[in-house]
Amino acid sequence: LSETDTTFIRGSSLPWTQLEPGVRRQILGHGDDLMMVSVEFEKGALGKLHHHPHRQVTYVARGTFRVTIDGRDETLRQGDCFYVAADLLHGVEALDDGTLIDVFTPAREDFLPA
Amino acid sequence: LSETDTTFIRGSSLPWTQLEPGVRRQILGHGDDLMMVSVEFEKGALGKLHHHPHRQVTYVARGTFRVTIDGRDETLRQGDCFYVAADLLHGVEALDDGTLIDVFTPAREDFLPA
Repeated sequence: LSETDTTFIRGSSLPWTQLEPGVRRQILGHGDDLMMVSVEFEKGALGKLHHHPHRQVTYVARGTFRVTIDGRDETLRQGDCFYVAADLLHGVEALDDGTLIDVFTPAREDFLPA
Repeated sequence: LSETDTTFIRGSSLPWTQLEPGVRRQILGHGDDLMMVSVEFEKGALGKLHHHPHRQVTYVARGTFRVTIDGRDETLRQGDCFYVAADLLHGVEALDDGTLIDVFTPAREDFLPA
């Protein structure tokens, strides 16, 4: 991501960071209060249960996911969405290859290069 | 949108609000500080230039858009993103049928039913 322009962001030009096996993340547009990231999953890959104080809203851009939030789980598909209030335990399992668009407020500064 | 559950949001079950000609909006997950909406455009439809104090980040989920922010314009495609800082004038033109996923902080309370 260019440090000089986070206004127009071209997914094809951005680096990916490998996370868990079969999971990689790309940081899209962001400012102090708002950050969008794309997360690609291979079928069967997990986003392990975790929590953070940031509020999160996620769009299912591709694929099918089993999503767990605060002990409830549902299966969501392309065009669906989930919202995670502050500090709620949440995670996903990719039932097919898929992509989630995660958005956080405030920004996840822990995702940015030091 | 169920008033009792904004945690798991199924796009297929949500109402659409018609906006400008060829433009309709669906409110996805939201809380006080964060709101995600889906906006569908027919080819040639416009999201007219406007501004608001909310910070906005948008994912191009489908289609190709000419995006104008603060007097600059670029053409963005599926997988691209744009970020709009507070109060910047911005708008889009749909060059094909397409879908934008807009996310705001704080929430756009003006979008919610009274």
